Amino acid sequence: MFEARLQQGGLLKKILEAVRELVSDGLWDCDGSAITLQGMDSSHVALVEMYLRAEAFDHYRCDRNVSLGMNHAHLSKILKCANNDDIITLKAADQDPDTCSLILESKGGEKTSDFVVNLVRIDADQLGIPETEYSAHIKMSAGEFQRICRDLSQFGDAVQISCSKQEVKFSSTGETGAANITLSHSATVDKEEESVTVDLKEPVDLTFALRFLNLFSKASPISEMVTLSLSQDAPLVVEYKIGDSGHIRYFLAPKIQEDE
Amino acid sequence: MFEARLQQGGLLKKILEAVRELVSDGLWDCDGSAITLQGMDSSHVALVEMYLRAEAFDHYRCDRNVSLGMNHAHLSKILKCANNDDIITLKAADQDPDTCSLILESKGGEKTSDFVVNLVRIDADQLGIPETEYSAHIKMSAGEFQRICRDLSQFGDAVQISCSKQEVKFSSTGETGAANITLSHSATVDKEEESVTVDLKEPVDLTFALRFLNLFSKASPISEMVTLSLSQDAPLVVEYKIGDSGHIRYFLAPKIQEDE
Amino acid sequence: MFEARLQQGGLLKKILEAVRELVSDGLWDCDGSAITLQGMDSSHVALVEMYLRAEAFDHYRCDRNVSLGMNHAHLSKILKCANNDDIITLKAADQDPDTCSLILESKGGEKTSDFVVNLVRIDADQLGIPETEYSAHIKMSAGEFQRICRDLSQFGDAVQISCSKQEVKFSSTGETGAANITLSHSATVDKEEESVTVDLKEPVDLTFALRFLNLFSKASPISEMVTLSLSQDAPLVVEYKIGDSGHIRYFLAPKIQEDE
Repeated sequence: MFEARLQQGGLLKKILEAVRELVSDGLWDCDGSAITLQGMDSSHVALVEMYLRAEAFDHYRCDRNVSLGMNHAHLSKILKCANNDDIITLKAADQDPDTCSLILESKGGEKTSDFVVNLVRIDADQLGIPETEYSAHIKMSAGEFQRICRDLSQFGDAVQISCSKQEVKFSSTGETGAANITLSHSATVDKEEESVTVDLKEPVDLTFALRFLNLFSKASPISEMVTLSLSQDAPLVVEYKIGDSGHIRYFLAPKIQEDE
Repeated sequence: MFEARLQQGGLLKKILEAVRELVSDGLWDCDGSAITLQGMDSSHVALVEMYLRAEAFDHYRCDRNVSLGMNHAHLSKILKCANNDDIITLKAADQDPDTCSLILESKGGEKTSDFVVNLVRIDADQLGIPETEYSAHIKMSAGEFQRICRDLSQFGDAVQISCSKQEVKFSSTGETGAANITLSHSATVDKEEESVTVDLKEPVDLTFALRFLNLFSKASPISEMVTLSLSQDAPLVVEYKIGDSGHIRYFLAPKIQEDE
Repeated sequence: MFEARLQQGGLLKKILEAVRELVSDGLWDCDGSAITLQGMDSSHVALVEMYLRAEAFDHYRCDRNVSLGMNHAHLSKILKCANNDDIITLKAADQDPDTCSLILESKGGEKTSDFVVNLVRIDADQLGIPETEYSAHIKMSAGEFQRICRDLSQFGDAVQISCSKQEVKFSSTGETGAANITLSHSATVDKEEESVTVDLKEPVDLTFALRFLNLFSKASPISEMVTLSLSQDAPLVVEYKIGDSGHIRYFLAPKIQEDE
């Protein structure tokens, strides 16, 4: 059987919010060491990979590898019933289960909610994502990244991210005019969540669809910091750490300049 | 003449919010000892009874019984102009009045708002509701009851309430899957508003339309606790106390199982 | 060149919110001593005049008078990117500029956003508004004025303002009934923002369209107090001070009684 018990149920709520608008049905692959979810958006432009180690759970048992095809809209309805400090347990049978159980327990124990959700069949192979060397890594406040993407969406559909030694510039242009937001490298700031780190091997200058970056930044509640990794002509990686126990990574191909 | 002056105008706002979506036009019966409002929803499935003793008012005078036919939407517009700590006075003439006056006074006295509202004609006899013995009484947090009804509405149109010695279970099923929320009797909890009391003569198992329970729970701001009284094949009673001065009671017939 | 640098960028956001629903495109006239904006609503019933002295800015330079035709919707998009404590700099060339620059700097200096916005051509002469003697001045809380206009909008399209020696009455009538809100002169109150001052030469009794008063009260965040100046058969003036450095004044012709 598969059984995983999470003390801070709020984490599962945040993880689901971070993926459900991008991927409507997702395959949650559970093995002895971790739960992994991979999925592409319906236009096959963006990819999300969620990885949550067994250590994140205070109880984790997975006798045989099992893949749970989740309807994320249904799962979201269930998790809306959970308070952030509810304990959440996931349960499924070993052999091609048709259903999955979720049990929510209030902290005091006086309220228990259990849900049986029908699983969906999803045909998807897990993609191997090659480890790549990137030309630039930008580490910044997740909230600030979200704010920049939202603000620039008022001006255009795309953002140009250009990175030089000491700063990163986000630019967008449309009928309203031109907008440029520049962040300076400031690693010495006391509060990490206000610092911006630009780690650069060579300058990059790439353009991305803001619609996806806005979807990615739904993961902001998971981590105070986000890391953008860029290389010329390679997909952007937007990574949020899940404490010490995993991560959510989003991949997005750059827009080809002639397209614009 | 009829004149009733309420120090905490906010109470009248909460009472109106608790009835106005269920009953659009209501007959407010005023006599020497209390104001009573009875009404059914337009489909005649649910009944509400509000009872507010003269003692709730710091001034109350009712020379002759008078029935005020109120358009609750109009009354709501007026009460939206009131702050919670405004003093509200209701005034009407004795003999078949066509209008009713509401006077709102700010605490400091520098602002006075008066409204004249046209009364509506409502033909309704006050129903005598027989006192009944119930098989089960459940006393619980009003906010928790509201939350459960709202959460289960995501899964189905109806909730099955089943009550055994030490717990009460709320269940709902739909295309999303099955949901069960169980509360355990926990009368020893320090904070009354977190306790759940199950007082049971014999087990009950009844199904109700969630749409109405959601309307009933609009009364949650009136009282921290709500009491559900159930008997097999009898209407459910959902009661909110108005301090020591009255109550709002909702009555709802169970769904017949064959209907489902 | 023209360059004006405002330490508290939030002020510019509030000023724009106070005018943009009334005037969609506005001519910001800049000279050596101040920025002035005048505009009428599209139906030419209401007029707004904003006046902001050079002293409001911590740096202000205007070599030649310049008029900036601003699309307020575009300007609003830019200012939505600003935090209230961002420093905002406006820049334009001297000679009939086609564009205007806005630079937003975060307090710590690690984030700089610059925007280039296309100017629009507006043909409008600045009106000379004659200084008039008014029969009545009412000074009251800006928030209270906003609340009264909003509350009365539920009852009718127009408000009758009648002013006698010690009080001012706002009245509105519609199918819901009649509503009267009366404020008493209370200049001795400790907190200025709760006081109401009625300074009366002769009684006035005038009717105005609530739609415009609701638009005027969008300026409430700019000042705790608002002053209404009234004379029989003359336009109402609704004035909000911008600290010690300027004001926003709205002018509205009364409704002619036969029209109602």
